[in-house]
Amino acid sequence: MEENLLDKVVSLCKRRGFVFQGSGIYGGLSGTWDYGPYGAELAHNIKGLWWNHFVREREDIFSLATSIMMSEPVWRASGHLEGFTDPMVECKKCHHRFRADHLENKTRCPDCGGELGEEKTFNLLFPVEIGSVEGASSRAYLRGEVAQGMFVNFKNILDTMSPDLPFGLAQTGKAFRNEIAPRDFLFRVREFDLMELEYFVREDDWENRFEMWRKEMWRWIERVGIDKEKVKEREIPDGERAHYSKRTIDFEFDYPFGRKELYGLAYRGDYDLTKHSQVSGVDLSYFDEETKERFTPHVIEPTFGHGRTMLAVLLSAYREDEMNGDKRTYLALKPVIAPIKAAVFPLLKNKPELVEKARAIFTDLKKEIPQVVFDDNGNIGKRYRRQDEIGTPYCITVDFDTLQDGTVTVRDRDSGKQDRIAVAEMAEYLKARIV
Amino acid sequence: MEENLLDKVVSLCKRRGFVFQGSGIYGGLSGTWDYGPYGAELAHNIKGLWWNHFVREREDIFSLATSIMMSEPVWRASGHLEGFTDPMVECKKCHHRFRADHLENKTRCPDCGGELGEEKTFNLLFPVEIGSVEGASSRAYLRGEVAQGMFVNFKNILDTMSPDLPFGLAQTGKAFRNEIAPRDFLFRVREFDLMELEYFVREDDWENRFEMWRKEMWRWIERVGIDKEKVKEREIPDGERAHYSKRTIDFEFDYPFGRKELYGLAYRGDYDLTKHSQVSGVDLSYFDEETKERFTPHVIEPTFGHGRTMLAVLLSAYREDEMNGDKRTYLALKPVIAPIKAAVFPLLKNKPELVEKARAIFTDLKKEIPQVVFDDNGNIGKRYRRQDEIGTPYCITVDFDTLQDGTVTVRDRDSGKQDRIAVAEMAEYLKARIV
Repeated sequence: MEENLLDKVVSLCKRRGFVFQGSGIYGGLSGTWDYGPYGAELAHNIKGLWWNHFVREREDIFSLATSIMMSEPVWRASGHLEGFTDPMVECKKCHHRFRADHLENKTRCPDCGGELGEEKTFNLLFPVEIGSVEGASSRAYLRGEVAQGMFVNFKNILDTMSPDLPFGLAQTGKAFRNEIAPRDFLFRVREFDLMELEYFVREDDWENRFEMWRKEMWRWIERVGIDKEKVKEREIPDGERAHYSKRTIDFEFDYPFGRKELYGLAYRGDYDLTKHSQVSGVDLSYFDEETKERFTPHVIEPTFGHGRTMLAVLLSAYREDEMNGDKRTYLALKPVIAPIKAAVFPLLKNKPELVEKARAIFTDLKKEIPQVVFDDNGNIGKRYRRQDEIGTPYCITVDFDTLQDGTVTVRDRDSGKQDRIAVAEMAEYLKARIV
Repeated sequence: MEENLLDKVVSLCKRRGFVFQGSGIYGGLSGTWDYGPYGAELAHNIKGLWWNHFVREREDIFSLATSIMMSEPVWRASGHLEGFTDPMVECKKCHHRFRADHLENKTRCPDCGGELGEEKTFNLLFPVEIGSVEGASSRAYLRGEVAQGMFVNFKNILDTMSPDLPFGLAQTGKAFRNEIAPRDFLFRVREFDLMELEYFVREDDWENRFEMWRKEMWRWIERVGIDKEKVKEREIPDGERAHYSKRTIDFEFDYPFGRKELYGLAYRGDYDLTKHSQVSGVDLSYFDEETKERFTPHVIEPTFGHGRTMLAVLLSAYREDEMNGDKRTYLALKPVIAPIKAAVFPLLKNKPELVEKARAIFTDLKKEIPQVVFDDNGNIGKRYRRQDEIGTPYCITVDFDTLQDGTVTVRDRDSGKQDRIAVAEMAEYLKARIV
């Protein structure tokens, strides 16, 4: 299964309304993906869980929601204008472009065999002209990462929140990179969501905190439902790390197309605050009220790609098995992120008393748990297959016994096991299982 | 108070960490705003409430999360390349630019008195060059509204969800407009969040559904905590409406700078699906299984600016009064959207037994209600002032009686009334009041 797992997941995502090509009816815009109803809910649930895990359940994190467009000096200070580049070559014959560092043969085009041009560096930031006429406008850039919005607001946080070290800033949001060759579904794209933290510490405290975040990242990986067996830490060695970083760990995932980055954890020293302070002229130091010291905090940065999380979660959850003699496909998503928590069925669609009862049970349940659907499309087998494929953990069937004894059948997605549960206990039964 | 209400709200937003100027340490990027910790949580809560109200609590709405960058043909089909323009004039002397339709005197610059140039139309879409080298790249645009992502995915929804009419699509997300003159805080900006629905109906059903949405929008206005007294419907008369719209209502709000648009409700006929079908060549009609008819659905579009919602909510919630002889400022936010639901205080910061007890109560409470904070900064009066200004509905004080009888003081933000509540009942007490 492993070798064509990606194809299977892509196919399920399209067939069941998780992910579509962006601008699809116009032939698609490469490197952009649109989330359909179940993809949007899954994305929403993952972001909400991340927010709970890294912001709301902690006391040391402040959230931000900063702008996508940021002015040119931000990107000059951050080093992105100079350094945020990929090496690129173009075929002189077919004009296809390639990442130079991904080519094995650097002289001949892998598509047409034509001669390749010289290697150029290509900046990944998207510029935008702000203002009304070209030439007289000011240039800004779509952010290539969400981190800079946090550094630029560091002083605002000190002024308004008076935080004690260590403390962190967190935000989620879109970022953009003009990738030369988007590929591998949600893995390498031009528009994507990031979930990032910048954690500010005293220099002598960085190793402890780095370990704390390392553990927290593993806890998240488990909580969101990424297969831990497929995740490996990679210590980025000297020479590969940014010059200011004393330590960086990539969390890599075994995607069907290879072991590649999922998340990153970097110790960035005081590089970012120092650079922004130099270029902006604004003092970005921290004053410790207790020790009466003034210094520039150091930074630990845990970074999470949201699309890569979606992809790793889907790849981890995809299952094929046999149930009651039939082959089936299902997504073993953790209930907390499943797009739909439960589906309510009338056993037969053409029995008004069953439909009416099922509607009543559904309506009550939806008040308690909004992510519940009513499904009377096709026969019961077809409904199970549909709900299995979108990862709905529980299917509730209203049958003739329900009319007699007030119980329903609750089917567990993964085991197929069926329980009879009293309607009155249904909401509590589900609530205990979907957190 | 009315005349300088905006200044007061802007000042509170900056002072308390709700809203900062974007790219602020570099002099700011006009038309962009960054949300600080309380702004980000308020924004998050408003979006979550909208999502519940318009998506999860309903059965007829499917959600989407489509890309910000969309290819050029999308915007040609939608009419934005031609029609999404503002009339602009530039001063020949100081080169400041103005919306021509906002000027009273169209010959002289309001800033320097210089001569104004000719009126030009100026397109509000931001172009971006996708791909690796200029000239050989393809042009896309940052979306100027989130609606087009829903029309472009209409066929995907039919294919994957098999919905019955009427049904709707919903999404929230960033949109961008290259405004000539951003102004009025969060009101007219270049980067903003939208929350939109496209509701597909049979042509003969549009009036009923339009009324349904009109009521739903009022229900939302009440639910989110916008002062209904300040909201007025404006029927957009013939000649001002888009040519394809038979009816449009603006929901206007009495901002301190005038009565201006808050939300919009438009009946758009079959214009959008027809245009996209013509330009893309993809059939975007709907087949009714019951009547065996094939036709293009008509569209009703309720649109909600997220930043304008933030602004209207803040303007509606801002209060000044006197309590126990002291003047105070507070935000009477609905608890469901308040950034912090409750703050737990030890009465005195230097009594370890109080601090310890308060920490224990806080820790338990935070497990049940994550948006709870511990606050022992400054004296109790200062803490009340801070929590009042950020709109925290409940402050819980742990005092010496708590150690004796296991009760705490719960202070209501708006009335200042204090109740003694058993610690064991605290979570339930709050939960019942913050939904």
